[in-house]
Amino acid sequence: MSRNIVAILVKNHFGVLNRISGMFRRKGFNIDTLTVGETDNHDLSRITISFLGDDDKEQIIKQLEKMPDVVEVAELEAGSFVSRELVLLKVANTPESRQDILSVVDVFRAKVVDYAPETMTIEVTGPTTKIDAIIEFLREYGIIEMCRTGIVALSRSHGHVLGDNK
Amino acid sequence: MSRNIVAILVKNHFGVLNRISGMFRRKGFNIDTLTVGETDNHDLSRITISFLGDDDKEQIIKQLEKMPDVVEVAELEAGSFVSRELVLLKVANTPESRQDILSVVDVFRAKVVDYAPETMTIEVTGPTTKIDAIIEFLREYGIIEMCRTGIVALSRSHGHVLGDNK
Repeated sequence: MSRNIVAILVKNHFGVLNRISGMFRRKGFNIDTLTVGETDNHDLSRITISFLGDDDKEQIIKQLEKMPDVVEVAELEAGSFVSRELVLLKVANTPESRQDILSVVDVFRAKVVDYAPETMTIEVTGPTTKIDAIIEFLREYGIIEMCRTGIVALSRSHGHVLGDNK
Repeated sequence: MSRNIVAILVKNHFGVLNRISGMFRRKGFNIDTLTVGETDNHDLSRITISFLGDDDKEQIIKQLEKMPDVVEVAELEAGSFVSRELVLLKVANTPESRQDILSVVDVFRAKVVDYAPETMTIEVTGPTTKIDAIIEFLREYGIIEMCRTGIVALSRSHGHVLGDNK
């Protein structure tokens, strides 16, 4: 199964997120990651959803386009977009592991954003593969807590971009 | 009105996101940002919701705790957490504005992640105030498209952390 990413521009009306997540549920698609953020226009938000599955992808997009408060829907095609995630990772901080953890932080160009005697919290951004890799490296030192944003993405294309005619 | 952040640890069951966003809607709270991401345990996801409002905040938390597939709910108290957002910004790239934009990128320790003759895409991470500030600076050069993750947050406390007893 492939990972699909759709970007949905919506009006900031009550319940729009609920209707969209409900539609995915009814169609049998499990949402992998979902982010909702403001756009430069305070009346519009942008919802980015990543989900697995090959079937009925076109159908999902058609359904989304028909929904109230949905202004525009764009499917991001593999290779034609920049995608990023952010993760905050709280790891155990011990005298034995400290230097090793800081080396991993350095290699991945991550940042320590909170440092306490027994824990440190690390911020990393990058494509999903990079985020997965640093989590794998830090797992052996003990991940206490982790918070991942999910994917945001913008097309690389020079043509039409989401919301440019609004 | 104050901005509230709740972190919700949920089982990866079908429809859980839909039920949670529906509960906020029914109680009359408008979700400001929402992120869903995996945790280190593949059976659990972490939903971070920021919303405005002072009333009935406790009620929301109690309601969440009673919902199926909700494992744990934590309210993040102001000052006791590290929070971050990520934004991708596509701005107009012109010979006149290029150097100014790159100076803003430098000052905010942002990164250019895609560079084309007429646009550049910039990645920035930080607390919400920093993200708001760079958007304000870049607005005058022309923001073509923007994608913001919403807030993720981890407590700074050394005590109980979300999911540490699972």
